[in-house]
Amino acid sequence: MVSIHKQEARKLSISLVSPSSRDLGPNCGEDLDSEFSEKTDEEPADVYGVGDPAAKYSQMSPHLSSRGSIIKCFRDAAEEGYRAYFLDKYDEDKNPNGIINFGTSENKLCFDLLSSRLNQRDMHHMEPSLLRYPNWKGHLWLRNEVARFLSYYCKAPVPLKPDNVVVVNGCASLFSALATVLCDPGEAFLIPSPFYGAITQHVYLYGSVRLVFVHLDSRVTGMDSRPFRLTVKKLEIALQGAKTEGIHVKGLILINPQNPLGDIYSQEQLQEYLEFAKRHKLHVIVDEVYMLSVFDESAMFQSVLGMDRIPDPQRTHVIWGTSKDFGISGFRFGTLYTENQDVANAVASLGCLHGICGTVQYQMAQLLQDRDWIDQVYLSENHARLRAAHAYITKELEALNIPFLRTKAGFFVWIDLRKYLPVDTFEEEFSLWQRFLDHKVLLFCGKSFECKEPGWFRLIFSDKIHRLQLGMQRIRKVLEKEPQLAQTSLPASPWTIAVSQNEVASDSESKELLWKYGLATRSPV
Amino acid sequence: MVSIHKQEARKLSISLVSPSSRDLGPNCGEDLDSEFSEKTDEEPADVYGVGDPAAKYSQMSPHLSSRGSIIKCFRDAAEEGYRAYFLDKYDEDKNPNGIINFGTSENKLCFDLLSSRLNQRDMHHMEPSLLRYPNWKGHLWLRNEVARFLSYYCKAPVPLKPDNVVVVNGCASLFSALATVLCDPGEAFLIPSPFYGAITQHVYLYGSVRLVFVHLDSRVTGMDSRPFRLTVKKLEIALQGAKTEGIHVKGLILINPQNPLGDIYSQEQLQEYLEFAKRHKLHVIVDEVYMLSVFDESAMFQSVLGMDRIPDPQRTHVIWGTSKDFGISGFRFGTLYTENQDVANAVASLGCLHGICGTVQYQMAQLLQDRDWIDQVYLSENHARLRAAHAYITKELEALNIPFLRTKAGFFVWIDLRKYLPVDTFEEEFSLWQRFLDHKVLLFCGKSFECKEPGWFRLIFSDKIHRLQLGMQRIRKVLEKEPQLAQTSLPASPWTIAVSQNEVASDSESKELLWKYGLATRSPV
Repeated sequence: MVSIHKQEARKLSISLVSPSSRDLGPNCGEDLDSEFSEKTDEEPADVYGVGDPAAKYSQMSPHLSSRGSIIKCFRDAAEEGYRAYFLDKYDEDKNPNGIINFGTSENKLCFDLLSSRLNQRDMHHMEPSLLRYPNWKGHLWLRNEVARFLSYYCKAPVPLKPDNVVVVNGCASLFSALATVLCDPGEAFLIPSPFYGAITQHVYLYGSVRLVFVHLDSRVTGMDSRPFRLTVKKLEIALQGAKTEGIHVKGLILINPQNPLGDIYSQEQLQEYLEFAKRHKLHVIVDEVYMLSVFDESAMFQSVLGMDRIPDPQRTHVIWGTSKDFGISGFRFGTLYTENQDVANAVASLGCLHGICGTVQYQMAQLLQDRDWIDQVYLSENHARLRAAHAYITKELEALNIPFLRTKAGFFVWIDLRKYLPVDTFEEEFSLWQRFLDHKVLLFCGKSFECKEPGWFRLIFSDKIHRLQLGMQRIRKVLEKEPQLAQTSLPASPWTIAVSQNEVASDSESKELLWKYGLATRSPV
Repeated sequence: MVSIHKQEARKLSISLVSPSSRDLGPNCGEDLDSEFSEKTDEEPADVYGVGDPAAKYSQMSPHLSSRGSIIKCFRDAAEEGYRAYFLDKYDEDKNPNGIINFGTSENKLCFDLLSSRLNQRDMHHMEPSLLRYPNWKGHLWLRNEVARFLSYYCKAPVPLKPDNVVVVNGCASLFSALATVLCDPGEAFLIPSPFYGAITQHVYLYGSVRLVFVHLDSRVTGMDSRPFRLTVKKLEIALQGAKTEGIHVKGLILINPQNPLGDIYSQEQLQEYLEFAKRHKLHVIVDEVYMLSVFDESAMFQSVLGMDRIPDPQRTHVIWGTSKDFGISGFRFGTLYTENQDVANAVASLGCLHGICGTVQYQMAQLLQDRDWIDQVYLSENHARLRAAHAYITKELEALNIPFLRTKAGFFVWIDLRKYLPVDTFEEEFSLWQRFLDHKVLLFCGKSFECKEPGWFRLIFSDKIHRLQLGMQRIRKVLEKEPQLAQTSLPASPWTIAVSQNEVASDSESKELLWKYGLATRSPV
């Protein structure tokens, strides 16, 4: 059954996702390079930016400290879209006119599989040691399982060690803890942008650590081989720029597979970035939280933990968790792997503030050790469902003539709506975001990812077909009303998709396949 | 069955715990007042101290930030005793010569009750919403249950509101979050000492918030009506002293029932402390984490949430959790109740770093709403077991002629071993602590609670009888070897217990009762 799914999914994937001549697979940049004319070396001023959350939020509360007031503003700001969403959530039966959430990066395709696994008898274990204070690094038997799990899935050349593992309640906590123990207040990490925007608050809320954005660019320039490509040159410019501004940069954050771009770094790229960090004695935090969500089987994922030689192992710290790859963000489970015992112990010291329930630690150990279920049931099915959902959404985007970055991993598509902005500003981007929300579809706009070009949006596709369909109908409705800029007046967008009918499955074919993968409901809206 | 236990427990409690003429119940201080001669007003210099964790830990790590190095040292220091303990834990069967833990404040008497309740069918619930990102304030249905629970057990004059509730992974996280949102780095809270020492790290690790100790004193002085009594005068002196030193005090921390003293504040006391805070516009964090662990039925506990009028409700924040009262510290569940929405929202903003697994939130809601089980099964049985264990330990202390503070709540007895210190220093206290550890019993000494007088120890009694017996044998062995200072050379200790045989149950009677309460094992060591 599983293998049939796999085959069908591959067929679907090939028919819907196979790159067109203008599509941007990770290795197609060279062609594009020669195709477009605006290849200029970046001006340093374009290439980096310095985040300053305190400047953004200045409203003081009479009962809070200065930092408390800023911390509160983070919640107020985050709630803007969510408040509307939570008050008027889409529900097939109870609120069919409610808001569809294409914003939050969650995998909603596999609750059935996870619920069923987590409800099995072996999960319901109770013993006094689980009810008592744990070791704040995590129970040893869990760290053993994490080390085994990561050794296997990251293809580690030698078995990873449980002593190098710390488990806490989610990857957000790991960012917070690492920022605090690696940086003093006001110090900074480099991070390529666009990036998963919540990291700003994870390192700032408690840590008062700032981010220096290494701005990536949709233009394919002399330095790049693909849009939004991270190069060492950009890292160097940003680092030097920050230094000139008196900012003490202590490390580099890499997300791989990247969120929101979906990029998977090649072994060579990784090596280059890590060598750059080593040269400058920078710590590297590598967030591999989507490592098992590489749904396209033609893609190769290279974990840092699977490298034959990590350039500076004492300054290399890898984050993984179950939120994305197992679609259980509500479980709050994140793991750090670092050979640096000072870092591990300092993070563990903060562990008393990031503890996980003992019975949940037990369940996570049971889950991670169940290699049969993960390999033979879960991953294959999850990837098939992701492929099918991705195929559906990208086909819709093609039909709407919306350019997007084609990806093989993650739950998101990075879409280019610049032609719908009458003026090239973030105010206009926000205004478009608001119109989507008015039409009951929540997206995240580029500003949330510190993208330097207004007009980009991240669309989450890891959802059931009836919600994808309804959401796309609403997006279509908004965009149909928008005056479009003539293509010629836009900065050239090299990865605009040329939709060719013979490249995509017919609507009915696609629907049938989606039905098979359990993505469709019996009565799609 | 339950009511029989209750009756028997009361009998045991009366026979073993009834105050002797020199025993210190909360209301017996007036008599003592006139009995002792060294009643002097405190010198200000004696009455407060300023904590400075950074000064204590100066060892820098080459890979960590300055604060990271200090954070790591906290773990190293905490591990001193625990490292030995974890390497050589007592186990009845596997390691009968291992270390007995009289140090960690856990209730080990009720794992059977909790395991059985948490294993019931209603706890094994799974639905997609539990697997997804929660509201960082906690799921609304859980906050509803917390509000109902606190309304009932705190005897709130009007129903408490779920909007004022924030749930996070343990009370440590609440201290961290409140410190951060109420204080800027370097600012401080007042706290009466001795106090639960971990609060130092909870407010300092992330928050860099310091504590100003309001030193309580074993002497009964003109200001006091009982040893270690907190008075407003002491609070005033400490606050003024800190101001003089340029320390910005933002609030007051109260623990009620107090840890390690076991004091339960009367309504009048509470009112006085809160009025003091209001006068000075100080926030008050009231930690009521032992509120349901008042095992002596003659005692009355007054929750701040049960007061008819809270003097400054916008600056009053109450903490409670399940770690102590339900003996499940491994579950990591703490709740904040505050009417101040800025504080609630700022803490909720940090909630993304202190999240609880959705299924655990569900279980906690099920537990807290089960009023029948809590009232008719759990609390009565738990209190009976605590009474029996307390009776056993205090009888043993009396037999050893060790003075202690008699209490009616909590899991601990605050014992006076000053006569075993050849010199009145913390070095000697540490040395005695080390000798206990060498004899395989882990206690916490007064220094861990910032007690200003060397020679005090906290002994945890909420454990099974065979471990209590073995631990006490080992303590006896250590003390028998110690040269004792003649009573006359000691500062007068007004609460030295006069052991009178007719006041305590006979050994056999006590043992029989302990058997009935399930505290004894079949083959006690």
